[in-house]
Amino acid sequence: MAVGLSDVLPPLHAVAGVRLGTTAAGIRKPGRPDLVVIELAPGSDCAAVFTRNAFCAAPVTVARRNLAARMPRYLLINTGNANAGTGAPGLRGAEECCAALAAQTGCDPSEVLPFSTGVIGEPLPVDRIVRGLPPARAALRADGWADAATGIMTTDTVPKGVTRGLRLGGHTVTVTGIAKGSGMIHPDMATMLAFVATDARVRPDLLQRCLQEAIDDSFNCITVDGDTSTNDACVLIATGAASAPPLLSEQDERYPALREAIAGVCMELAQAIVRDAEGVTKFITVDTVQGRDRDECRAVGYAVALSPLVKTAFFASDPNWGRILAAVGRSGLSGFDVDAVSVYLDEVCIVRGGGRAPDYTEERGREVMQRSEITIRIELARGHARARIWTSDFSYDYVRINAEYRT
Amino acid sequence: MAVGLSDVLPPLHAVAGVRLGTTAAGIRKPGRPDLVVIELAPGSDCAAVFTRNAFCAAPVTVARRNLAARMPRYLLINTGNANAGTGAPGLRGAEECCAALAAQTGCDPSEVLPFSTGVIGEPLPVDRIVRGLPPARAALRADGWADAATGIMTTDTVPKGVTRGLRLGGHTVTVTGIAKGSGMIHPDMATMLAFVATDARVRPDLLQRCLQEAIDDSFNCITVDGDTSTNDACVLIATGAASAPPLLSEQDERYPALREAIAGVCMELAQAIVRDAEGVTKFITVDTVQGRDRDECRAVGYAVALSPLVKTAFFASDPNWGRILAAVGRSGLSGFDVDAVSVYLDEVCIVRGGGRAPDYTEERGREVMQRSEITIRIELARGHARARIWTSDFSYDYVRINAEYRT
Repeated sequence: MAVGLSDVLPPLHAVAGVRLGTTAAGIRKPGRPDLVVIELAPGSDCAAVFTRNAFCAAPVTVARRNLAARMPRYLLINTGNANAGTGAPGLRGAEECCAALAAQTGCDPSEVLPFSTGVIGEPLPVDRIVRGLPPARAALRADGWADAATGIMTTDTVPKGVTRGLRLGGHTVTVTGIAKGSGMIHPDMATMLAFVATDARVRPDLLQRCLQEAIDDSFNCITVDGDTSTNDACVLIATGAASAPPLLSEQDERYPALREAIAGVCMELAQAIVRDAEGVTKFITVDTVQGRDRDECRAVGYAVALSPLVKTAFFASDPNWGRILAAVGRSGLSGFDVDAVSVYLDEVCIVRGGGRAPDYTEERGREVMQRSEITIRIELARGHARARIWTSDFSYDYVRINAEYRT
Repeated sequence: MAVGLSDVLPPLHAVAGVRLGTTAAGIRKPGRPDLVVIELAPGSDCAAVFTRNAFCAAPVTVARRNLAARMPRYLLINTGNANAGTGAPGLRGAEECCAALAAQTGCDPSEVLPFSTGVIGEPLPVDRIVRGLPPARAALRADGWADAATGIMTTDTVPKGVTRGLRLGGHTVTVTGIAKGSGMIHPDMATMLAFVATDARVRPDLLQRCLQEAIDDSFNCITVDGDTSTNDACVLIATGAASAPPLLSEQDERYPALREAIAGVCMELAQAIVRDAEGVTKFITVDTVQGRDRDECRAVGYAVALSPLVKTAFFASDPNWGRILAAVGRSGLSGFDVDAVSVYLDEVCIVRGGGRAPDYTEERGREVMQRSEITIRIELARGHARARIWTSDFSYDYVRINAEYRT
């Protein structure tokens, strides 16, 4: 069960200029919503980041190319099949799907961005996707966010969506986003599938920078299993359909508020992915502080967050702090004074001066470890930088889910 | 159960100049062999490498310092307690154990090298170790290798020992080694505990080089869970008690044969650790070939060997080659042509040209995946370098063993 997430989405506000339609196209299993069309009003701007995995999926290649050519009118998302490791036929398949939607809507094929998620290495069922386009288009509506959040799920146990309203210089603006992801989560300058939209108007280069900054602090700070997906993508749409005048520069006094809202939506979606990680029983924040720079804090945080030994100890609610120390110790810090390090589990200091804190007791450690949300705070005592990483524990169910995934 | 390892050790040849004594000192659990003394004849030389984990254990610090001061007469090894993360009291504890053995044997405390393995972060029970020294010394004998192999085990399910005899310019020489390790295995320029001895005489700097080379191709090529231990150590002893004249230089025509024997013992011990990895059901060789250099082949091999998704797929005997491709793709190769890559599972080609091989069938993949020993061969098609990494799969039992470790 997901940690700290409701099975039911909160109400997601419509974003003027965006309509979403979801259908069950039978891509992998019958009767399950698996095809989503997102329609953007003419004049919408769009920023995106994609996986850095060299084996990127065919839709990533096509979406990158199309976005470089012109602003999109449609996003086309399927689950059940990743269309990755599919070579030239996979590229043709992604292009055929875009062409079919373009023909039905009268736009150019390059105005469609394709996204796929699911099993790697199987041929994309183009026919089923094309047959699913009319019902998906018929379902298009401004309040289709919740259905779309469900329609992009794979091993996710709950849909993920976040919404924010804000006032921008006297005008009301909305930011709404949805995301999917549960395993193969270790985004590298990108993320799993996430789609965030606002009805503000933002200059395209500023929109891209805003997205990159939001991602660096959110999707690029989570890991479930260290495996970077072939299909990661995060899209930020600005329709400009709200009444607020365009944001043209970082110096615009309204920009910080919008950036904060977008970053907040990304952060909450990223954390939702970890809260719904495969087999999760604990939501763990690794807060590394007092480092020389952010990079070394991230290196320490990831060493701890990725350690199977740390993750199984959390699953067992065992305050085995030696495993945390061992992970910190192998994270590659130069000139590192281990005797200066302190480690906390929530409010309980477990390590001070490189060894067990004098006032620490196993009882206090066990009490903290029973919680479903725990912060590991690592004080490096060598600077003022900080980084937070979010991760999940490692359970029998992680093994079961990934051993049975294709059956 | 360990993969391809017998519960019973093969006969391990005595090494002239080395005696070993093992006892049950009740360090963590009563009645279990947990204390080993290894006595080296006067004039023996010794080379060693230790963990690069910044949080190295107290015995690692003491052993490094003592070895730098003079050649050892005794190795003192305990299991059940790693004496890591124990601060200044841990250092004092390790020194007290060395001093006690020195006092009983009439050597200097700096002629004793201490080694510990077990739970991190608990105070070393110095009293029990000191009380165990007389029975351990009373048990000293030249054919004590098998008992010592058992005496250094922690979560290992079988003892690990390898022996080689060779002729060196008309003289018979023996190389025998033992090792322990099963989890927290991702040696970084070092290894888990391993003790290898020969009765050849080898100049100390040559002995160190010989050990380093042997380790680079063996212990430094294995991983179970990516976690580098705080206590890794590998010791190579040359007693010089055989009749063969000393080896003084790499140009000595007898050197390649001895180096090969030592490297072979290290390789077999390293693989034995993986074969007995926590929860192992499959022994996996990741053979990355046609790379630009060895480093990039190792990066690819480790990305695959460490992927929880690849490891759970092997546990499930599921030929989910998409996960292998995804791991190769995130390993950070620059200018990488994914369309040139081929991947084999043993003799079955599963990927060619960046996608599923035309003649591949799921049936053939499943047949290979039923085997308990499988080689993944990754052809990068961009050079002539190669690297092999050995790893295990990821099972329910890995989670169980590490969730229950301290209970």
